[in-house]
Amino acid sequence: MTTRMVEVRQGILKKNDLLARALRERFAAAGTRVVSLVSSPGAGKTALLQRTLTALRPTLRVAALVGDLQTDNDARRLAASGAPVRQITTGTVCHLDAEMVRIALDDWPDVSLEALDVLFIENVGNLVCPASYDLGEALRVVLLSVTEGEDKPLKYPTIFGSADLAVITKTDMTEAAGFDEGAARAAIQAVRPGLEVLRVSAKTGAGFDDWLSRLAADRF
Amino acid sequence: MTTRMVEVRQGILKKNDLLARALRERFAAAGTRVVSLVSSPGAGKTALLQRTLTALRPTLRVAALVGDLQTDNDARRLAASGAPVRQITTGTVCHLDAEMVRIALDDWPDVSLEALDVLFIENVGNLVCPASYDLGEALRVVLLSVTEGEDKPLKYPTIFGSADLAVITKTDMTEAAGFDEGAARAAIQAVRPGLEVLRVSAKTGAGFDDWLSRLAADRF
Repeated sequence: MTTRMVEVRQGILKKNDLLARALRERFAAAGTRVVSLVSSPGAGKTALLQRTLTALRPTLRVAALVGDLQTDNDARRLAASGAPVRQITTGTVCHLDAEMVRIALDDWPDVSLEALDVLFIENVGNLVCPASYDLGEALRVVLLSVTEGEDKPLKYPTIFGSADLAVITKTDMTEAAGFDEGAARAAIQAVRPGLEVLRVSAKTGAGFDDWLSRLAADRF
Repeated sequence: MTTRMVEVRQGILKKNDLLARALRERFAAAGTRVVSLVSSPGAGKTALLQRTLTALRPTLRVAALVGDLQTDNDARRLAASGAPVRQITTGTVCHLDAEMVRIALDDWPDVSLEALDVLFIENVGNLVCPASYDLGEALRVVLLSVTEGEDKPLKYPTIFGSADLAVITKTDMTEAAGFDEGAARAAIQAVRPGLEVLRVSAKTGAGFDDWLSRLAADRF
């Protein structure tokens, strides 16, 4: 039974890789930079994204796809930025996959890739499942909030290994949480040597200049 | 491919249910009460458990099984309580299952179920995967930390639906996090009407009297 499960899962992952490759080519052809966010539930993906969309909107054409098992709460929060936002509800599935992204893009009234500079994809809150599913993104960002515990990278190495950038979030609560940033950075470097680490507070805006510059450094 | 995946998954869940039933009978025969903890990564399962083990140890024979993808950090933290603790590392699997629990119990030097009043099982940090896997526990406790966002129950209804008790954690950070407890309680009741809710801070000990009494109300 276990062997069969592995076979089926590998088949699904292989299919996802092919779909993700097609998406990546489409994004490149359209000139759209795609940035995905992964983290535990509650690490602050939506808060980071809301402030980011609001900050970028005056100068760039931005939009967001948002994954959740249930509810369109996040899409409604993000829509307050004024950017186009589309919710993908996954039901019982603990991650987005390339097919879900393709379907959402193909059926998004009034939004076309060619008209977007940056598309953000907020994955389902989960430190395990999203690691294996390439979504065709150019930049995968893993968030770690100061309230979560410094050793999360050691416990969930695969997702940190799959990321291109780590962002420490909720830094306004550093003291209240007793967060040891040195320990967290050491844990990140232990599982992913050389991974760049930024720190932000979506509540106060601290660190946003660096975060927005980092996004700009790659393309815009 | 999708249909085949569902079939295989159902087979695995059915096998787990049979194993969980056997575990439940074993726990009952041994007179051991089994309490499991589920939550997001970083919601404070280990901190709650550490303080709980320390509080119960003078009067009860307690032990803990702790699941993580990697590391035995949690087991080492919990061992500071003086109680027997065993780590189960799941590799890439995002939850514990009944078979993992059985194997850990059968190969635990110097610990037998008959000599335990209470066995705690700390699941892998994940709000999705553990929901479907019965571990034979008598009481499943879902944790929600004040830093996570009040709508998590609406977004992850299955795990809240599978729980027997909800515990709001890290209440010492309520103000720093801007946590709206009324909204969180409303969200819990929306997905699981009637579910009992407690509130604790493992840092200050606030709420521990109620939490320990609640454990006592069922058996000890």
